[in-house]
Parts: sequence; C-alpha cells; structure tokens
Amino acid sequence: MNENILGIVAGILTSVSMIPQLVKVLKEKNAEDLSSIMILVLITGLSLWVWYGIIKDEIPIILSNAFAVLVNITLLICCMIYKKKK
Amino acid sequence: MNENILGIVAGILTSVSMIPQLVKVLKEKNAEDLSSIMILVLITGLSLWVWYGIIKDEIPIILSNAFAVLVNITLLICCMIYKKKK
Repeated sequence: MNENILGIVAGILTSVSMIPQLVKVLKEKNAEDLSSIMILVLITGLSLWVWYGIIKDEIPIILSNAFAVLVNITLLICCMIYKKKK
Repeated sequence: MNENILGIVAGILTSVSMIPQLVKVLKEKNAEDLSSIMILVLITGLSLWVWYGIIKDEIPIILSNAFAVLVNITLLICCMIYKKKK
C-alpha cells in the first residue's frame, strides 16, 4: 500500500477518535475530568510531532498532529473557562 | 536537533499524557465515560501508524504508537469488564 495513503487513513482514524470527547465537553460544558497539565503536556508532544513531520517532510504526520493540536487547544480553553465558573 | 531525538521526546510526551486516564480507570474501576467503539477506532488508527512506521523505518513512530496501542487495549479490556459488571 502507498505509505502516504496509509498515513492519511491512520491520521483520519486517530483524529476521528478525538471528536467525541471534544463534543462531550462542549455539550455538557464540563471539563472536570480533564487535567489541564496533561493537556499541556499532550499539546507540547503533538507540536513536537508536527515539527518532526516538517523535518522529515511527511504530510500525514504534519496534518494529523496539527489537527490534534487544534482539538487539544480547544479542550484546554474549555478546561480554563468551565473550571473558572465553578 | 537530531530528528530521532525529537521524535523520541515527542513520543514520550504524548505517551505520558495517556497514563493519567489509564490510572484513573484502573483506580476507580469505572470506564463509563469511555466509548468502546471510539477506543476500537483509535486502536485501528494507532496500529496503522505502527505499520506506517515500519514501512518508513522510523523507530520513534513505531515505539510511541505501539505503546499507545497497549494503553488503549488495556482501556478497552477495562471498558468491557467494568461495563459488564453493571
């Protein structure tokens, strides 16, 4: 199988699996179960993966990790907004 | 920076960020908030990333995704055990 297609399919699957948590947090306006520190660690790790993808010039790695960074930045913002309200 | 070191650091950070959820589920013996279907989608995606890493011969991708597969298989087993008990 073409490795780029494989990477894109892998990226779509790992990206799709993140959506339900985001939807749940946005819907319930509750982010109590999420740890801000862990989201920060995750965002740092994912950003380094994007950097790795840029160095290696691998589009699937750049795209899927950039998407994951966006999802987790949204989660982090939700965490800060909803925790402040309590 | 050496790209392998970059990938390994990225992999360690994204792996570390998964541990608290696993510990929480194991401690509370409660996996109600987790969706088995999404964990299955995630395991499929992560396995494809391992395959991608093998084709591209990139150790950091293989190691970090293989670790993520193990964590998520454990979560899936917890999901099945704890949900059956209710």
